[in-house]
Amino acid sequence: MNLFDSRFLKSGVTKERREKLLPILSAALAAVDPVAAVKRHMSLVGDELRIGERIYDLGQYRDIYVIGGGKAGGSMAKATEEILDDRLTAGVINTKYGYLAKTEIVRVNEAGHPIPDAAAVQGAKEMAGLAARASDGDLVICLISGGGSALMTLPVEGITLADIEVLTASLLRCGATINEINAIRKHLSQIKGGNLSRLAYPAEVVSLILSDVVGNPLDVIASGPTVPDSSSYAQAYDVIERYGILHEVPSSVVEHLRTGKEGIVPETPKDDDAAFAKTYNLIIASNEVAAQAAMAKAQEISFNTVLLSTFVEGEAREVAHVFSAIAKEIAHSGHPVSRPACVVTGGETTVTIRGEGKGGRNQELALAAAIQIDGLDEATIIALATDGTDGPTDAAGAIADGSTLIRARDKDLSASDYLANNDSYHFFEALGDLIITGPTNTNVNDLTFVFVF
Amino acid sequence: MNLFDSRFLKSGVTKERREKLLPILSAALAAVDPVAAVKRHMSLVGDELRIGERIYDLGQYRDIYVIGGGKAGGSMAKATEEILDDRLTAGVINTKYGYLAKTEIVRVNEAGHPIPDAAAVQGAKEMAGLAARASDGDLVICLISGGGSALMTLPVEGITLADIEVLTASLLRCGATINEINAIRKHLSQIKGGNLSRLAYPAEVVSLILSDVVGNPLDVIASGPTVPDSSSYAQAYDVIERYGILHEVPSSVVEHLRTGKEGIVPETPKDDDAAFAKTYNLIIASNEVAAQAAMAKAQEISFNTVLLSTFVEGEAREVAHVFSAIAKEIAHSGHPVSRPACVVTGGETTVTIRGEGKGGRNQELALAAAIQIDGLDEATIIALATDGTDGPTDAAGAIADGSTLIRARDKDLSASDYLANNDSYHFFEALGDLIITGPTNTNVNDLTFVFVF
Repeated sequence: MNLFDSRFLKSGVTKERREKLLPILSAALAAVDPVAAVKRHMSLVGDELRIGERIYDLGQYRDIYVIGGGKAGGSMAKATEEILDDRLTAGVINTKYGYLAKTEIVRVNEAGHPIPDAAAVQGAKEMAGLAARASDGDLVICLISGGGSALMTLPVEGITLADIEVLTASLLRCGATINEINAIRKHLSQIKGGNLSRLAYPAEVVSLILSDVVGNPLDVIASGPTVPDSSSYAQAYDVIERYGILHEVPSSVVEHLRTGKEGIVPETPKDDDAAFAKTYNLIIASNEVAAQAAMAKAQEISFNTVLLSTFVEGEAREVAHVFSAIAKEIAHSGHPVSRPACVVTGGETTVTIRGEGKGGRNQELALAAAIQIDGLDEATIIALATDGTDGPTDAAGAIADGSTLIRARDKDLSASDYLANNDSYHFFEALGDLIITGPTNTNVNDLTFVFVF
Repeated sequence: MNLFDSRFLKSGVTKERREKLLPILSAALAAVDPVAAVKRHMSLVGDELRIGERIYDLGQYRDIYVIGGGKAGGSMAKATEEILDDRLTAGVINTKYGYLAKTEIVRVNEAGHPIPDAAAVQGAKEMAGLAARASDGDLVICLISGGGSALMTLPVEGITLADIEVLTASLLRCGATINEINAIRKHLSQIKGGNLSRLAYPAEVVSLILSDVVGNPLDVIASGPTVPDSSSYAQAYDVIERYGILHEVPSSVVEHLRTGKEGIVPETPKDDDAAFAKTYNLIIASNEVAAQAAMAKAQEISFNTVLLSTFVEGEAREVAHVFSAIAKEIAHSGHPVSRPACVVTGGETTVTIRGEGKGGRNQELALAAAIQIDGLDEATIIALATDGTDGPTDAAGAIADGSTLIRARDKDLSASDYLANNDSYHFFEALGDLIITGPTNTNVNDLTFVFVF
């Protein structure tokens, strides 16, 4: 699999290094490819359907439905069809416009992301219909990936998409935390917060999950449609009251939360709900899977490897300092691992935009690192968005090494000026050190590699 | 050595944990104690003076002088006297007001730091006098520690302390880099930039260096009085010209740099200067030494250890994200090291002040970490300034764990509000989780410990 276009192959980083590093990046991306991930975790031999550690004897099941949402939804649906073929009864998956896949039985429905639209609601309504139709003796396979929360939007009766938009704007403005926002969202949805499992009950549910959330919290990924909700109507209502936005928020929302709080409409399903005894959630691809695949490949080509963490967050240019510091220590003392070294880290950083340039969090991290490791010949640092789209750019990330600033000075580029202007894209574009993969149809956050040769 | 006062011993962090962690912090500080460090690297048996890997046969030397500067200067001079006793001819050391030590032969001179004063110049003049007096067959022992640059201030003839102050203000205002500022400083000093070695030549010079600069660059620590200078008068002059501050900078400075550039006054000594063939620079304490001592003690009490890096810089609260991410990964997967784990990192972070509270970089790092590891019971993160003074506070740092925010909520303290106000000191003071050591008389930057039990 050649994921890298000719621009990267002409990078200023020495050819010998690039050739060593490419297979490592490719291995990481290949491991989290949605089709590969589905097929690694699902197989059918005779009537025996293996999913993860479980075995479903299809002789015992009547109908099999496929539902779900996310940017990898089309690919996951196609892979599922290839395994189950005409055993499938029906299915509908929402995916982002442009992410269509060719399927036979499952309808892949294009819809709005990150802002949900009527098409998203229409698809989600069909999903809910299939889940509701499924009953004891049926199997519902739920395919979840990045973007699934927006792409499985189905507000409760009486609340419109426009209401949700107004609500979200209010919540962001008043400074509510992401946990508070999620608690409210789950109580306004027919799908989120475990509601999908409840809809499908008493059918059996299997969720195959491609995680795009750092740390893989099941109740957060796609707002946990098949996972118990630990929040309550009372808490959701309390958030709106506490931030003093009762009069800003659409009255339909306030009314629904109030009736929920008063016990007039039933709570979202909790841990002890019978639906979860019949639900199996399985993460089939995650940052960790990508990181481990990268490490295995790096070991194969004789790097000493360390998996530092898959939980890294924080401001990209500051987090870069730690990676640069690790590169320096390896070069200096062989700690935490001796050369040739490959330290793999995963997560998702953020960028506080102060300038007017173009870039993404990974390119910005790489630019900061380039400044920090200036002159350290042994070091190469790569930052990569696994979805192939780093911020609002066509690059997946960038590659920095001890010669980056030397090459930049030759072209009269000031790295610190480009960094101050958040213009990492144009900096690395000029040096030929962008990493361009094109969309990978997957997303398990970002990877950073510290290599010391 | 009990370095921790009763406030820490009442910390909210469980007693069992505190008792395990204290010996590790104590071991780190003990290893870089100036007296211990001098005695570890210098010993006298008969006429045989061993310093580092070298042996000086005192039967072959006439006079032995002790000079130098820094906050640990008094302690280092005292230790040197205890070893060499009446073999010493004379000496003078500049140290900060309040850092006096009781010595017999070496005069310990208190002076201004961080702003040098007339007392600093007077002491430095005496040092230069001793160095100049030393000749072939003499030994000059130079004791250098944190603050040495200000404390060994001796401008070239015709330039005053006031001139230097005006110059420094201009350079900071125009955005000159630290390397550019240092290039200029070295060309305006009789001591910095290798000039002290040249003054002492043809005497033999040994510098014992307690490093307070991340990465231990010899030419940067105390502005490298016994280290070749790689910058030139031409470069120094160029900086002032390039930033357009020729008319702001005192004319005495411009004049001196110009005459230097034109070759009228001799360059600072370079790599090939004969003085350096007779100079031996030895780092006797550094961040790495402290980190290694901590690791050894942690291993002894059965932690699995990793030395991550001794080069970490960056914004404290953002860098904290990486430490928190490592704690999460260890708890989750046992990478990069299995539990019970102790990950040691060194360096020096910075804080961009936006609030009006009180705190230091280590306390701020610990506060950010407390938020990030909220609820992660297994984790404890400690950030410690080895000089015992973290920012403008009487604390050396703070201790954060998975229960910090729970205990804070019990006291109605909002961690994020305290962080937004840069008020880490009062947050941890209220919880009893400040680390108070008092001044340690040493400084090898900061240490951060990630423990996962």
